[in-house]
Amino acid sequence: MQHGRVLVLNGPNLNLLGQREPDVYGETTLAQIDASLIALGRELQIEVECRQSNHEGELVDAIQAAPERFDGIVINAGAYTHTSVALRDAFGGVGIPFVEVHISNVYAREEFRHHSLLSSLAAGVVVGFGPTSYMLGLRGIVDRLRSR
Amino acid sequence: MQHGRVLVLNGPNLNLLGQREPDVYGETTLAQIDASLIALGRELQIEVECRQSNHEGELVDAIQAAPERFDGIVINAGAYTHTSVALRDAFGGVGIPFVEVHISNVYAREEFRHHSLLSSLAAGVVVGFGPTSYMLGLRGIVDRLRSR
Amino acid sequence: MQHGRVLVLNGPNLNLLGQREPDVYGETTLAQIDASLIALGRELQIEVECRQSNHEGELVDAIQAAPERFDGIVINAGAYTHTSVALRDAFGGVGIPFVEVHISNVYAREEFRHHSLLSSLAAGVVVGFGPTSYMLGLRGIVDRLRSR
Amino acid sequence: MQHGRVLVLNGPNLNLLGQREPDVYGETTLAQIDASLIALGRELQIEVECRQSNHEGELVDAIQAAPERFDGIVINAGAYTHTSVALRDAFGGVGIPFVEVHISNVYAREEFRHHSLLSSLAAGVVVGFGPTSYMLGLRGIVDRLRSR
Amino acid sequence: MQHGRVLVLNGPNLNLLGQREPDVYGETTLAQIDASLIALGRELQIEVECRQSNHEGELVDAIQAAPERFDGIVINAGAYTHTSVALRDAFGGVGIPFVEVHISNVYAREEFRHHSLLSSLAAGVVVGFGPTSYMLGLRGIVDRLRSR
Amino acid sequence: MQHGRVLVLNGPNLNLLGQREPDVYGETTLAQIDASLIALGRELQIEVECRQSNHEGELVDAIQAAPERFDGIVINAGAYTHTSVALRDAFGGVGIPFVEVHISNVYAREEFRHHSLLSSLAAGVVVGFGPTSYMLGLRGIVDRLRSR
Amino acid sequence: MQHGRVLVLNGPNLNLLGQREPDVYGETTLAQIDASLIALGRELQIEVECRQSNHEGELVDAIQAAPERFDGIVINAGAYTHTSVALRDAFGGVGIPFVEVHISNVYAREEFRHHSLLSSLAAGVVVGFGPTSYMLGLRGIVDRLRSR
Amino acid sequence: MQHGRVLVLNGPNLNLLGQREPDVYGETTLAQIDASLIALGRELQIEVECRQSNHEGELVDAIQAAPERFDGIVINAGAYTHTSVALRDAFGGVGIPFVEVHISNVYAREEFRHHSLLSSLAAGVVVGFGPTSYMLGLRGIVDRLRSR
Amino acid sequence: MQHGRVLVLNGPNLNLLGQREPDVYGETTLAQIDASLIALGRELQIEVECRQSNHEGELVDAIQAAPERFDGIVINAGAYTHTSVALRDAFGGVGIPFVEVHISNVYAREEFRHHSLLSSLAAGVVVGFGPTSYMLGLRGIVDRLRSR
Amino acid sequence: MQHGRVLVLNGPNLNLLGQREPDVYGETTLAQIDASLIALGRELQIEVECRQSNHEGELVDAIQAAPERFDGIVINAGAYTHTSVALRDAFGGVGIPFVEVHISNVYAREEFRHHSLLSSLAAGVVVGFGPTSYMLGLRGIVDRLRSR
Amino acid sequence: MQHGRVLVLNGPNLNLLGQREPDVYGETTLAQIDASLIALGRELQIEVECRQSNHEGELVDAIQAAPERFDGIVINAGAYTHTSVALRDAFGGVGIPFVEVHISNVYAREEFRHHSLLSSLAAGVVVGFGPTSYMLGLRGIVDRLRSR
Amino acid sequence: MQHGRVLVLNGPNLNLLGQREPDVYGETTLAQIDASLIALGRELQIEVECRQSNHEGELVDAIQAAPERFDGIVINAGAYTHTSVALRDAFGGVGIPFVEVHISNVYAREEFRHHSLLSSLAAGVVVGFGPTSYMLGLRGIVDRLRSR
Repeated sequence: MQHGRVLVLNGPNLNLLGQREPDVYGETTLAQIDASLIALGRELQIEVECRQSNHEGELVDAIQAAPERFDGIVINAGAYTHTSVALRDAFGGVGIPFVEVHISNVYAREEFRHHSLLSSLAAGVVVGFGPTSYMLGLRGIVDRLRSR
Repeated sequence: MQHGRVLVLNGPNLNLLGQREPDVYGETTLAQIDASLIALGRELQIEVECRQSNHEGELVDAIQAAPERFDGIVINAGAYTHTSVALRDAFGGVGIPFVEVHISNVYAREEFRHHSLLSSLAAGVVVGFGPTSYMLGLRGIVDRLRSR
Repeated sequence: MQHGRVLVLNGPNLNLLGQREPDVYGETTLAQIDASLIALGRELQIEVECRQSNHEGELVDAIQAAPERFDGIVINAGAYTHTSVALRDAFGGVGIPFVEVHISNVYAREEFRHHSLLSSLAAGVVVGFGPTSYMLGLRGIVDRLRSR
Repeated sequence: MQHGRVLVLNGPNLNLLGQREPDVYGETTLAQIDASLIALGRELQIEVECRQSNHEGELVDAIQAAPERFDGIVINAGAYTHTSVALRDAFGGVGIPFVEVHISNVYAREEFRHHSLLSSLAAGVVVGFGPTSYMLGLRGIVDRLRSR
Repeated sequence: MQHGRVLVLNGPNLNLLGQREPDVYGETTLAQIDASLIALGRELQIEVECRQSNHEGELVDAIQAAPERFDGIVINAGAYTHTSVALRDAFGGVGIPFVEVHISNVYAREEFRHHSLLSSLAAGVVVGFGPTSYMLGLRGIVDRLRSR
Repeated sequence: MQHGRVLVLNGPNLNLLGQREPDVYGETTLAQIDASLIALGRELQIEVECRQSNHEGELVDAIQAAPERFDGIVINAGAYTHTSVALRDAFGGVGIPFVEVHISNVYAREEFRHHSLLSSLAAGVVVGFGPTSYMLGLRGIVDRLRSR
Repeated sequence: MQHGRVLVLNGPNLNLLGQREPDVYGETTLAQIDASLIALGRELQIEVECRQSNHEGELVDAIQAAPERFDGIVINAGAYTHTSVALRDAFGGVGIPFVEVHISNVYAREEFRHHSLLSSLAAGVVVGFGPTSYMLGLRGIVDRLRSR
Repeated sequence: MQHGRVLVLNGPNLNLLGQREPDVYGETTLAQIDASLIALGRELQIEVECRQSNHEGELVDAIQAAPERFDGIVINAGAYTHTSVALRDAFGGVGIPFVEVHISNVYAREEFRHHSLLSSLAAGVVVGFGPTSYMLGLRGIVDRLRSR
Repeated sequence: MQHGRVLVLNGPNLNLLGQREPDVYGETTLAQIDASLIALGRELQIEVECRQSNHEGELVDAIQAAPERFDGIVINAGAYTHTSVALRDAFGGVGIPFVEVHISNVYAREEFRHHSLLSSLAAGVVVGFGPTSYMLGLRGIVDRLRSR
Repeated sequence: MQHGRVLVLNGPNLNLLGQREPDVYGETTLAQIDASLIALGRELQIEVECRQSNHEGELVDAIQAAPERFDGIVINAGAYTHTSVALRDAFGGVGIPFVEVHISNVYAREEFRHHSLLSSLAAGVVVGFGPTSYMLGLRGIVDRLRSR
Repeated sequence: MQHGRVLVLNGPNLNLLGQREPDVYGETTLAQIDASLIALGRELQIEVECRQSNHEGELVDAIQAAPERFDGIVINAGAYTHTSVALRDAFGGVGIPFVEVHISNVYAREEFRHHSLLSSLAAGVVVGFGPTSYMLGLRGIVDRLRSR
Repeated sequence: MQHGRVLVLNGPNLNLLGQREPDVYGETTLAQIDASLIALGRELQIEVECRQSNHEGELVDAIQAAPERFDGIVINAGAYTHTSVALRDAFGGVGIPFVEVHISNVYAREEFRHHSLLSSLAAGVVVGFGPTSYMLGLRGIVDRLRSR
C-alpha cells in the first residue's frame, strides 16, 4: 500500500455532534472531526473520506461499495452498533478491514450499549477518548493496512 | 408558548391502520386519526402536523429536524419502539419533549412488545386506548408544554 | 351510559403526595388531585369518587365492591402495581373496565418498576405526566365507557 | 388460483451472493437464483418476480404493496430475520401468505441467528439447502396457495 | 386423633367463586363448597370450619391462631400462593400440617402462577379438579392426620 | 359412564417402591398400591388396571392404546415427568383425560423436579401425599369422568 | 448416485397422524404420507422406505444401521427433536446426510418446541408446510445427494 | 439530639419468636427482645418503642406516622423484606433514617431471602446475630442520629 | 470384598466407537476397551462384565438389576448423561456405588454436554482421557469398594 | 473465654481509607479505625489486632493462621468479598467464627457488590454504617464468643 | 519419554487437608498424599514433585516455569478452579499437558463449584475419589505423556 | 503537564508474549513492546516506565503507589480484566486516569473475555490491534493528560 484510502463512516445522530448533549459527546462538531481526520490522513499519507447517514440501509450500501475505492474503514456506527446484524453481515460479506470507534465510554452508559455486533469482526476497537477515538482509530487501521 | 406546534410521528405499518387487523387496531384509518388530531389541536389552540414512515432513518431525520419547526412530538413508533436505539438517541440528542403512544395494549401481546427503548426518555406514555391514545397523548404533550 | 360513575383508587403511600419527594412526585397533594378529578368529571358529566389505602386487602375489597356503584375505575396502585397478583385477580374477577395511571415515569426508575401485573388487563395505561396522568386516565376511561 | 404470482424478496447483503464468502453461501449469484426461480415458476405455472434491498423500510414497503400484485411471498430477510419487528408487523398487517427461506444453516452459526421474528407467522420455513432453499420455498408457497 | 378439626382457609378473590369467570373457576359458589366440605367432614368424622379473607395479614393471623383449635389446614391461598413469603413463614413458624389446593389448573395459566411459595412445606398439593380439589385436599389432610 | 375403566400407569423406577429409599418414598410396595387402587376402584365401581415400565417408548405406546380400553388414566410418570415431551404429545394426541400423581413432594426436592411437562394438559395434579396420592388421583379422575 | 435410497424416519406419536388433533396436524394419515413419498421417490428415481417408532432407542438403532442400506435420511423426530441428545449423537456418529422436517409450525407453538437438537447437523430443515414438509424434505435430500 | 426516640418495628410472624422454630430463631421471645431494647435504650439515653404487625398495610401506616414521634426506625420486616415495594416506598416517602435487622443469617437460607427491597435505602443493615442483631441495630441507628 | 464384580455399562452410540468420528473418540473399538477392562480387572482381581445399549429403559433395567450380581458400576452413559433423570433415579434408587466416565473432554464441547445429571450421585467422575478413562474409572471404583 | 483475642482483617484498598473517595468511604483513616477498635476492645476486655493486605493469598494465610492466636475474626474483605472462593474456603477450612463488615452500603452500589461469597458462613454481617460497622462487628463477634 | 517428570500443584487451603473438615476432605494430610504420589511415581518410573500455595500469582509463576523442568502437571487448583482466568491463561500460554483433580465431588456441593475454568484445556479431569483422585490423575497424565 | 510520566502495567502471563501462542498474541515480546513504548514516549515527550506481574496484589499495590510518580497509567490487566474487583477498586480509589488495552480481540474469544471490570472507569479502551494497542493507548492517555 502506497498512499492507501480510508473511509470514515458515521452512523445515526452523529451529525448532531457538538450541537447537542455536549456533556456526553463534547463540543467538537462532526465537520471538525472530519477535518482533523483528513489532516491526520495527510500526515500519514492516507486519503481520508468521511460520510454520515441516519439510514441503516445506506450504511450497508456504503460498506458494500467500499472495497472498490477504499482499503479500510473506520466506523462509528452509533446506535446501529448494538442492533444491526445487517451492518455486521455487510462487513462479513465484503471482508474489508475496519476499525470500530466510539466517542463516549459506552461501558459507563446503559447496559444495551455494552454489546457491539461489530466488534468480533473488527481489526480493532477504540472506545471513550472523545473525538480522539477517531484519530487513534485511523492510526490503527493504517497500521493494520501497512503491516499486511 | 402561544399557539405551539406539535409533530405527530407514525412509524412502520401504521399507514395500514383501519385496513388490516381491525380486531387488533380497530377500524379507524390513519387519515381519520390525523383529522381528529388536527381538530383537537385547533380546540387546544395547537398546530398539529402528521407524518408517517416505514423507514427508521427517515424517522430519525424527522426527529432531528423537529426542533426547528415544532415544540413537541407525539410518536407512535410502532415496531421501532422495541428495536430502535437510533430513535432513542435522536430524542436524546435533540432533547425535544415527546409523548409515546400505542393504539393496542402492548402488554397484552407478545413478550418483545413489553419493552420500549423510548419510554424512559418520554414526557409521558399512553397505551391501549385505541385511536384515543393519540388524543390523550396530544393533550398530554400540550399540558407539558404549557406547564413549563 | 348517561352520567356514569368512576372510582379513582389510590394505593400505598399516595397519601404522601405533595408532602414528600417533590422532585419525584411533584408538589400537588392527593386532595388537590381529587378536587381536579371531580371538577373534570363534572365537565365530562361523570360522577367521580376518590379513595386511598395502604392495605392491599382493602384495595381488593374496593375493586370487588366497585361494580355495584361504579362503571369504571382509574387506579394508581403504587407499589402494588409491581407485586400484587391479588389486585390483578380482583380486576380479572369482577371484569370492570379500568385504566392504570402512574404519576412518575416508572420506566426511568428502578428495574422492578418497569413491570406491572395490571397492565395486560387494563383498558389503557397512562404513565409519567405527573398529576395530569389522572386527568388523562379519567378522559380515557370515560371515552371507553361511552364507546361501548 | 390459475397462474398465481409470487414475489421473491431478498434482504440485506444477499446481493453479494456468489461474490463473497463462498464457503458459507456458495458460489451461485443472486441473478442465477432469480433465473432458476423464474424457470421453476414457469414449470409450476407461476409468475415469479424477484427483488432485493438493503433497506428495512423498502422491504416493509414491498410487503405492504405485495397483496395488490402477488398471491404469496418467498422471503430471505437476511439479517433482518433476527432484528426486524417491522417486517413481522408488515406481514401481520397485510396477511399475505409467505414462506421464509435461508441459504445457510442458521442453526449452525452464531447464537443470534437461531431466532427468527418471522417464523411464527410463516406458512413454512426452509433452512440450509443452499440456493435450493429458494426452490423448495417456491414449491412450498405454491402448494399452500393451491391447497386453499 | 378421634374427631379431629380442620380449618379450610381461602385467600383473596375466592369469595367471588361462582359469580365471576365461570369458564375459569366453574359455577359453584364458595358457600356451596363450604357446605360440601362440612358434609364430607361429617362423613370422615372431622369437624370442618371455613374462612375467607382478601387480606394477607388476616390469613397470617389465622394460620398463627390455628394450632389452638385445629389439627390441620386446607388452604387455597389464591393470588398469595405466588407472592406471599409471609404465609410461607406463618406455616413454617407454627408447623401445623397443611394441604395446598387450587381450583383451576395453574400450570395451564400465566407463567407467574406456576410457582408456589407454599408447596415445598405442604403435606400435599391438589391442583386443577375444580371444587373437587377441596374435597381431595380434605381427604388428604385427614389421611395425613390419621397416619401419624 | 356406568362402571368406567381407569388405567394406572407407572414410569421408571417405581417398581423399586418400598424396597429402596424408604425415607423418600415410604415402605409401601407398588404391588400394595396396585391392590389398594383396585380395592378403591371396586368401592367406586371402577375397573382399575395397573402397569409399570422403565421405557419411555412403552409408556407412549400404552397411552396411545389406552382409549380403546380405558376412560381415563392416572399416571405417575416418575423421571419422565420432567423430561418427556413424547409423553406429553401422546396425551395431547389421544386426548384421554388423565390425572398426574407424585408420591413425594417434588417441590421440596431438586430444582429440576419442580417442572412437569404433563401438568398443563392434566385434568388434575396430586403431589406429595405418599401412596395416598394415587388414591386421591383415582377419586379425582372418577369425579372428572362422572361429571362429564 | 444412480437410483439412491432414502430412509424416512418418524418419531413418537406420528403414527397418530390424521386420527388426532387434525387442527394441528391435518387429516392426512402417516400411511398416506408414506404413499406420497414413495410416489414422489419414484418420480425422482429414488427408493424410499418409511418407518416409525415411539422408542428413542429404536430410532438410534435405525440411524446407526442406515448407512448400510441408505444414502440419506428424512427425519421427523417429533418430540425427540427437542430432547434427544442420543439422536443427535447417532447422526454425528454415522455421518449420513439427513433433512429434518416438521408438519406443524413449531415456532408458533410452545417455547420448548422452538429449539431442535438436530438442526445444526442437518443438511436442511423444513418446517410448517403440513404433509408437504416431507415432500420438500425428500426433494431437498435428493438435491443434496445429487450435488455431491 | 438529646434523648431521641427510636421505633422498633417488627413484621409478620415475629410475634412467634421463641415459641416456634428455636433452631432457626433461638429461644428468646419478642417480649424479651423488646425489654432488652428498652433497657439498652435507657443506657444510650434513647426512648425505645416496639411494635409488631402481620399486616403490610399497618407497617406502611406505622412508617408514615413515625416522623411525628420518632427520630429513627429499627425494622425487622420479616417476610416483607423480600416482597414489599410498599414498605420501601414508605421509607422513601417519609425519608426517616432506618436500620434493617435480621435475626437469622438470611444468606444461609432460601435463595429468595438473599435479596432485600429495603437495604439500598437503609442507614445500615445487621444480619444473623440472633436477638443481638436488634441491639447492634439500635446502637447503629443511635450512632447515625448522633453523628448528624 | 475378595474378588468383587464390576459392571461396565455403555450408553447410546458407544457401540460406534473406533468406527466413526475418530478425531473425537479415537480409533479404539468398544470391544477393545472391553478386553482391556477385563484384563485390568484380572490384574486387580475383579470380575468385569461389559454391556452396551442405545435404549434408556434397558439401561435403567440394567442398573436396577445390578445389585444382585455386581458390587459397583462404571458407566459411560453417553448422551443420556445430559438428559436422563431416569438413569439418575435408578442409581438413587438402588444405591449401588458407581463411577461416571467420558472418553472425550465434554467441557471442550457443546454447552449442553457440560452438565451431567449423574455426577452429584457418583463415587467419582473421570473425563477426557480417551479409552484410558475407563481404566481409571475401574481403578477408582475398585479403590472405593476396597476402602469401605 | 476470659479476655479473648479478635483479629480484624482488612482486604484490598482499605489502606486508602480516609485518603480517597471520602464521599463513599468517609474521612476516617484505617489507622483511626484500628485505634477505635483497640479502645473498644479494651472496654469489652478483648485484645484486638488489626491487619491489612492487598493480596488474596496473604489474607488466606492470615485466616489459616488465626486459630492459633485468635478466638474470632472481624473481616472487611473489600473487593475479595465478591470474588474470592479462596477466602470462603479458608473460613470453611479453619472453622473460626467471623463477622463480615462493610463500611459503605454495598446494596446501594454496583450489582456485583450485592453478593458476598462469605456471608453464608458468617456469624453475622454488618453493612453500611461507615467506620461504625467495625465497632458493631466487634461487639457482635464478642457477643457470639461469650454466648458459646 | 524415559523417566518423565510430573509436577503436582496444589492451590489454596489444600495445606489444611486432613486437619480440617474431615467429613468433606477425609483424614489424609497433604504430606501423606505427596508421599503416596512419589511412591506411585516410582512404580510408574516417573519423578514426582509436589508444591502448594495459597497465592494465585505463585501458582501462575509455577505453571510458567514448569516446562523447563517438567513434562506434565497434575493440578488441584482448589478455589481458583472456579475463579482464576489467570491460571487458565497460564496453561493456555505454556501449553504443557495437565490433569485437573478434585478430592471431593464438586458436583454435589455449591453451584459455583460446578464450573471449572481449567477443564476445557485439560488432558483429563478426575473428581470425587478422595485422595485417590491424585493417584488416578497421575496415572492419567503418565498415560497421556507415554501415548504421545 | 510538561514532560508527564506514564506507567505501563502488564498483568498475568503477559511476560510470555512472543514466546507462546503466537497465533493469538503475535511474535513480539514484552521487552520489544516496552522498548517501542519508551521510544514513542520520547517522541511524545513523555517518560514511560513498564512493569509486569502475575500477582493481583502486586498490581493493586502498583496502582496505589502510582499517583506519587506518574500522571497516568496504560494497563493490560490480562486475565484480571475479567475477574478483579480489587483492581477496579484500586483505580476507583486513587483516581488516576488510565487507559485499558488488549492485544487480541477479546470480543472474538471466549464469552467470559467480553466483559471488563475496568472499562467503565477508564479514560479509554483500545482492543485488538496487536502490540499497536499499547501505542494507541499511550497516545490516548497522553492526549487525555494534555487536554486537561
